[in-house]
Amino acid sequence: MAQQLTAQRVTLISLGVDDLERSATFYEALGWQATEELLAVRFYRLKGLMLGLIGVDALATDQGRPGAGLGTGAMTLARNYRSPAEVDTAFAAAVAAGATVLKRPEQVHWGGYSGYFADPDSHVWEIAHNPFWPLDADGYLAGEHG
Amino acid sequence: MAQQLTAQRVTLISLGVDDLERSATFYEALGWQATEELLAVRFYRLKGLMLGLIGVDALATDQGRPGAGLGTGAMTLARNYRSPAEVDTAFAAAVAAGATVLKRPEQVHWGGYSGYFADPDSHVWEIAHNPFWPLDADGYLAGEHG
Repeated sequence: MAQQLTAQRVTLISLGVDDLERSATFYEALGWQATEELLAVRFYRLKGLMLGLIGVDALATDQGRPGAGLGTGAMTLARNYRSPAEVDTAFAAAVAAGATVLKRPEQVHWGGYSGYFADPDSHVWEIAHNPFWPLDADGYLAGEHG
Repeated sequence: MAQQLTAQRVTLISLGVDDLERSATFYEALGWQATEELLAVRFYRLKGLMLGLIGVDALATDQGRPGAGLGTGAMTLARNYRSPAEVDTAFAAAVAAGATVLKRPEQVHWGGYSGYFADPDSHVWEIAHNPFWPLDADGYLAGEHG
């Protein structure tokens, strides 16, 4: 069971991008700081996991399907914030960094406050306040993990 | 700066799926345990973040583009393991659960051991051993976060 339970985790999120410098400029304009760049992958350390930017062709090759066209949009990343006001601030920062607005932050049906934008490669981010999900001091979800 | 630095995080990963029960069956066959189901989103708690399965049409609507066709593949999730043998075991479990093999685990150019599979909606997972990334007791990346 321990082996099964430890499988309930994510340690790396890789985003396939058309132009690594363009994408890095976008994320770094948000205040992100790169941890390392290795073999043309630029890594950003999160809490317990990494986010990597990698050329989309290299990603398709790594996936074992060189030349494949990879689509975006049906996997969404979110950052949660402590209040609607923080959501507005973070969303405005993303727009200032060049994000494409999909939906400006608003009160949403599940009881929170949320907006969506797309990064330069159409990777979709949600910026949200969820009053039902308390955050720890680092801004990650509080509580025991699965 | 603190506000900027806390933006370097991910608190929710949402996967758009065609059939919530089919997808939940797949992830639960891997040993995952659902935390809650709320408004037709099934959540799995990870360490500090959630992974949610949501109908792809509902996701497009949430994103502010109802009816949009959302693509998959250019955002990859990875789980890291402590050895190639653990990778083989985890990969075999995914295949047994119905994953589509994209690339069987093998030694790869960056010095690790890695394979790729697709879930029922073509969301891509990498199962990897990276000798350069030590893992903590929970299987997350050891070390200070950004």
